[in-house]
Amino acid sequence: MSIQKAFLLLTTVLGLIFAPHSFAQEHPSLILTKAGVEKIRANLGKTPLFDASLEKVKQQVDAEIALGIDTPIPKDFSGGYTHYRHKLNFVIAQKAGVLYQILQDDKYAIYVRDMLLQYEAMYKNLPVHPQERSYARGKLFWQCLNDSNWLVYMSQAYDTIYNFLTAEQRQKLENNLFRPFANFISLENPAFYNRIHNHSTWGNAAVGMIGLVMNDEELIQRALYGIEDDGLPVGGVDNDGGTIKVKGQKKGFLANLEDPFSPDGYYTEGPYYQRYAMYPFLIFALAMENTRPELKVLQHKNNVLLKGVNALLNLTDADGNFFPLNDGQKGMSYYTASLVTAVNIAYYYGGKNPQLLSIAQKQNQVLLDQSGLAVAIAIREGKAQPYVKQSINLSDGINGQQGGVGILRYGNEDLTLVFKYAAQGLSHGHYDKLSFSYYQKGNEVLQDYGLVRFVNIGQKGGGNYLKENATWAKSTIAHNTLSQNQQMHFGGKYAVASQHHSELYFYDDSNADVQVVSATESNAYPGSKMHRTMALIKDEHFEQAYLLDIMKVDSNSKNEYDLPFYYMGQVISTNFEYQTPTNLQPLGDKNGYQHLYLEGKGKAAANNTQFSWLGNGKYFTLTAITQPSDQILLTRIGANDPEFNLRRDAGFMLRRSNSDNTTFVSIVEAHGSYSPVSELSLNSSSNIKSASLLYDTDQYTAVEVIDIKGNQQVFILSNQNADKSKQHKVTIGGKTYRWQGPYYYQ
Amino acid sequence: MSIQKAFLLLTTVLGLIFAPHSFAQEHPSLILTKAGVEKIRANLGKTPLFDASLEKVKQQVDAEIALGIDTPIPKDFSGGYTHYRHKLNFVIAQKAGVLYQILQDDKYAIYVRDMLLQYEAMYKNLPVHPQERSYARGKLFWQCLNDSNWLVYMSQAYDTIYNFLTAEQRQKLENNLFRPFANFISLENPAFYNRIHNHSTWGNAAVGMIGLVMNDEELIQRALYGIEDDGLPVGGVDNDGGTIKVKGQKKGFLANLEDPFSPDGYYTEGPYYQRYAMYPFLIFALAMENTRPELKVLQHKNNVLLKGVNALLNLTDADGNFFPLNDGQKGMSYYTASLVTAVNIAYYYGGKNPQLLSIAQKQNQVLLDQSGLAVAIAIREGKAQPYVKQSINLSDGINGQQGGVGILRYGNEDLTLVFKYAAQGLSHGHYDKLSFSYYQKGNEVLQDYGLVRFVNIGQKGGGNYLKENATWAKSTIAHNTLSQNQQMHFGGKYAVASQHHSELYFYDDSNADVQVVSATESNAYPGSKMHRTMALIKDEHFEQAYLLDIMKVDSNSKNEYDLPFYYMGQVISTNFEYQTPTNLQPLGDKNGYQHLYLEGKGKAAANNTQFSWLGNGKYFTLTAITQPSDQILLTRIGANDPEFNLRRDAGFMLRRSNSDNTTFVSIVEAHGSYSPVSELSLNSSSNIKSASLLYDTDQYTAVEVIDIKGNQQVFILSNQNADKSKQHKVTIGGKTYRWQGPYYYQ
Repeated sequence: MSIQKAFLLLTTVLGLIFAPHSFAQEHPSLILTKAGVEKIRANLGKTPLFDASLEKVKQQVDAEIALGIDTPIPKDFSGGYTHYRHKLNFVIAQKAGVLYQILQDDKYAIYVRDMLLQYEAMYKNLPVHPQERSYARGKLFWQCLNDSNWLVYMSQAYDTIYNFLTAEQRQKLENNLFRPFANFISLENPAFYNRIHNHSTWGNAAVGMIGLVMNDEELIQRALYGIEDDGLPVGGVDNDGGTIKVKGQKKGFLANLEDPFSPDGYYTEGPYYQRYAMYPFLIFALAMENTRPELKVLQHKNNVLLKGVNALLNLTDADGNFFPLNDGQKGMSYYTASLVTAVNIAYYYGGKNPQLLSIAQKQNQVLLDQSGLAVAIAIREGKAQPYVKQSINLSDGINGQQGGVGILRYGNEDLTLVFKYAAQGLSHGHYDKLSFSYYQKGNEVLQDYGLVRFVNIGQKGGGNYLKENATWAKSTIAHNTLSQNQQMHFGGKYAVASQHHSELYFYDDSNADVQVVSATESNAYPGSKMHRTMALIKDEHFEQAYLLDIMKVDSNSKNEYDLPFYYMGQVISTNFEYQTPTNLQPLGDKNGYQHLYLEGKGKAAANNTQFSWLGNGKYFTLTAITQPSDQILLTRIGANDPEFNLRRDAGFMLRRSNSDNTTFVSIVEAHGSYSPVSELSLNSSSNIKSASLLYDTDQYTAVEVIDIKGNQQVFILSNQNADKSKQHKVTIGGKTYRWQGPYYYQ
Repeated sequence: MSIQKAFLLLTTVLGLIFAPHSFAQEHPSLILTKAGVEKIRANLGKTPLFDASLEKVKQQVDAEIALGIDTPIPKDFSGGYTHYRHKLNFVIAQKAGVLYQILQDDKYAIYVRDMLLQYEAMYKNLPVHPQERSYARGKLFWQCLNDSNWLVYMSQAYDTIYNFLTAEQRQKLENNLFRPFANFISLENPAFYNRIHNHSTWGNAAVGMIGLVMNDEELIQRALYGIEDDGLPVGGVDNDGGTIKVKGQKKGFLANLEDPFSPDGYYTEGPYYQRYAMYPFLIFALAMENTRPELKVLQHKNNVLLKGVNALLNLTDADGNFFPLNDGQKGMSYYTASLVTAVNIAYYYGGKNPQLLSIAQKQNQVLLDQSGLAVAIAIREGKAQPYVKQSINLSDGINGQQGGVGILRYGNEDLTLVFKYAAQGLSHGHYDKLSFSYYQKGNEVLQDYGLVRFVNIGQKGGGNYLKENATWAKSTIAHNTLSQNQQMHFGGKYAVASQHHSELYFYDDSNADVQVVSATESNAYPGSKMHRTMALIKDEHFEQAYLLDIMKVDSNSKNEYDLPFYYMGQVISTNFEYQTPTNLQPLGDKNGYQHLYLEGKGKAAANNTQFSWLGNGKYFTLTAITQPSDQILLTRIGANDPEFNLRRDAGFMLRRSNSDNTTFVSIVEAHGSYSPVSELSLNSSSNIKSASLLYDTDQYTAVEVIDIKGNQQVFILSNQNADKSKQHKVTIGGKTYRWQGPYYYQ
């Protein structure tokens, strides 16, 4: 037993002895509290957003009550009826319980009671779910994960109607349903329960929540610290290919809270799964705060959960959509229910940041608890302020030492760079070190493909990950980063990739007009070191900020390098000659290349290769400093896609063969606009006359950009010393440049 | 001279004699009137939408005045600077003139005066435009069309500052600029001026507008009636392939108003060009109304112009985007400036329909004249009502006898069918008889491709029509209609196509739950007759309305038929086997087929072939009644497209070979929804268990649909008698059906 754990246990025991009031177990106490209910009832009819949220929930629940309760025998994958119905049941039951507390109308308690008793009757003899795909099959659902979702919600429902039930009913439910249910997802499924993974977080929270309602200390301990001796061998993989157990693996809710979150609140799997995991993290931490505040679970690891909400909100584009780093379904946004929870809790328990209120306004709903009430009251009182997203660097790794994600923003999210130099991100990670995506407001300019999955759409592989997720979405060539010899980073090997991470070289957003993030990767291709520096620069001679991208590779062998840019839009012009084949063929036969059709092939233009496109009414030009032997490949996703699982999106790819040490420099300009309504085409051409690599040594890389009016801009990067106070001096073409810090720009 | 013309001339002469006051030529009198200005000034600061519109215009004009006047030597195509600048000049000058009247600040008059004098100095010696593509090159622009735009606006500008100028300045402008300008686009370019075409409408309006300001009766007559003897030979084509002169061709503004508009206000070229032509039609008609009301130009042809505004607003989807029938650029909508003009004028001069006010509210701007003021005042007074778009059948042709466009709408534009059975539509027409497109609110479900052109984007072929417009967009296979033996309708011959039109069989929207439009086409493929019937049916057993599509072909030869459906979205499921090739090849080598890649090929499923897709968060399933020998082709647009001018959109194509008389029946269901935010997938499967052709003779075609709960729906079409009062009786499978009118449904 660790010292920390012993201390917590002691606190618990002392609590039991000296603070029995906190265990008198009034109900509700988990999320909604007795005091909270009183305050809510006192404010009914006075707080527009709360009242509207209540009315919406009431309509939804009333409609379900009218339909009657259905607890079908489990049969389907996600996307099928039984899955959908059981999922809706726990969502509605939780809400009905809340309505019972707030409206004090017995019909809601009766509905929850009857549903729970129906489950009790069914669960006793329920075998594991008939669908066999999961490494940890549930009973109500095809995986324990969804069973855990059920218990997290049903615990809340139970808490709200606890006092409405007879002691006999409670005993029946606890003995035949809740305790066996909690044991099934934990003791009987340690491979599911004892991991460092969002699956386990849900499992831990579920066991802990029901433990708190039932005042069952054993379950609470099991939630916080996992199963002491799970008997699992080291190794093993789940059905998504994620490792189940590594040597010395920690376990339980607190470990899951410590491990995947960096001190900045970044969750290593990426924002899509952070969004998913935030709910059990926050809801159980909140339940602990309400029932065992002295354990300070909500404040654990220096308030990392509340920081996580801030990180998550910053991992969105201007429309609130999460950046689809690693496995992430596009379109998921801070409008999702778990972010309503997150924003409300972060506001109420995290210092009442008035900027969070404007997100709540956009969400247009609040939680029906004391935090939601506080948000609604503050909005009513006009306290909301715009949520302003700044540039931010989020470290990855338990101690913030495993790379990270740098987000550079110019203006009011006019342009946003998302630069990924993180760790692998567990089983949902993609093989895309030093990749990036680029946004103009809420529109993708250069996309991260995201995942290949139609979540919950049964016809598409049961709503699960499709095989193209592994063959395309996770591949290196699917991302805006460097591929070497058509291989994936780390050979596409998860076990190898999980041991490494990129290294931040420096991050500097102190000058709003020249923001830079720079990182290195030495392990993705053994023998090769990649150093990518991305600068978002607003120069007075340019209409908008431009993105300067310097990818410097040093290798001990001659390689073929591919650097793709997955632009979103339609080709407007090129300055290079290319041929378009009549018949399309795949670009390769593995590592993602088999999914790319070659739509055009050409030679780079002398010195600068330019490529312009129009997307979402905006013009963009990519200007690459190229060598005469460079090739340009115009690609289209969709080859070897027999089920039409992939989008037919386009790419521009620069190929440089037979090179060891080389530097790719690309500039992405946003310029002008086009409206199909006014049919005005403004500023549709690049502002760059020429770009050149003035100087490129181990020490320094200097890029010169000359705009069409002849103004010169020079960016010099110190390649080996990023110290802020370091003085530099370099003479290039007879001119001596002196500066302090990792870069020079003028 | 026609009797009508003689009468109008007589009226004019009488007007000259007996109503000299109407020619006392006060200024402004063209669009803005003296009385209008007084009323506007009296209402300043009191009418929010007018005040806001004024402020916006003022900001724009002030910014231009600050930049100074530039009238560069003409050089560029549309998309280039000189084109853009001259276009902006006339737009700003017109607005500056209006500001001068409303704000009575001389700086605006000075700006217009100086600009006009600069043009006067330049125009005298200006050669024709250096770009040689147009059949009628302008001087300021590459085509007389744009020069005419200039004069239409500058006439208004001149009118507003007329009294500010000295008599000497006016004489200078009139003698050296306006009169030569008007003569150049008319007398010197009769091939441009004397057509029945939107080009001539602009030319006629331009000459008429300046004629009215200068009180030049010769120009006014030339505007209304064209050039008496243009000396042009019959025939000739413009640079878009349109015929310049046919035998017995009428000419002039009134003829242009009569010919292309049907009595319902449908403009034969289609809504994109109607939108473009509406401005000169309305603005000159309004100028005539203000200065020569006794000629009743605005009311000409039974108020067809005002009906045209109504038709145009009805030719939009739920977002206000025009249906891209024939050549039409997608995204053009009723938010465009010419529709602000149209809506304001239609409101003020067309019976003050309060529904038009809600369109004006969406446009969020009004004209700065008496009509705009009236709209803004009515909005201020709360008179606006929602503009409700109903189903509508718009006839085509001068007398409404040349086919038409039927628009069936279900619900509040929840589903909209656009069925085209019109005439060719002049030079902008596509070869797509009996084609259709289908919308769910503002989203395309089954698309009409539109045009291949990047209007005003210089890099894309000077912003002009691209060659793929002819090779793809106009082709039959590019549309959701029947292709026979891979040929285009009318062999793709404009001269042939222009002689024919489809025939309405019947249109019936009297039952909101069963709306039907049916038409025939006998000339597109000589020897073959196509009869297509489309019904939008809301059955109680279906969640949403479904589209029933019956295409019956009778041919005197064995043919291969292709029936494509250009669905928008991603494949969700199919019930048929298909193969996907690794290498993509074009489907053919001409008639549009050369632009389609074959992505998949399969055999129809027995009896019913089903194909489901997800687009814009909604599920759709196409169920086709198929024969065992039918083939399914899954296509992708984009082959043989070296400049990337085409979008990579998908198609589902049914191919039936070696058939003469045959009937295609397809049902398109909208069902369910998917949200990437809640990740809820609702009702993602078809509700159809089976569909079958119960009966199919020359007299009757009967389709049976059985839903998954086993309910039977039967639709029977009388193929040869569409009389509403006709009694029918037919016995099918032992059951006798009796009904009255062209169809039976139950």
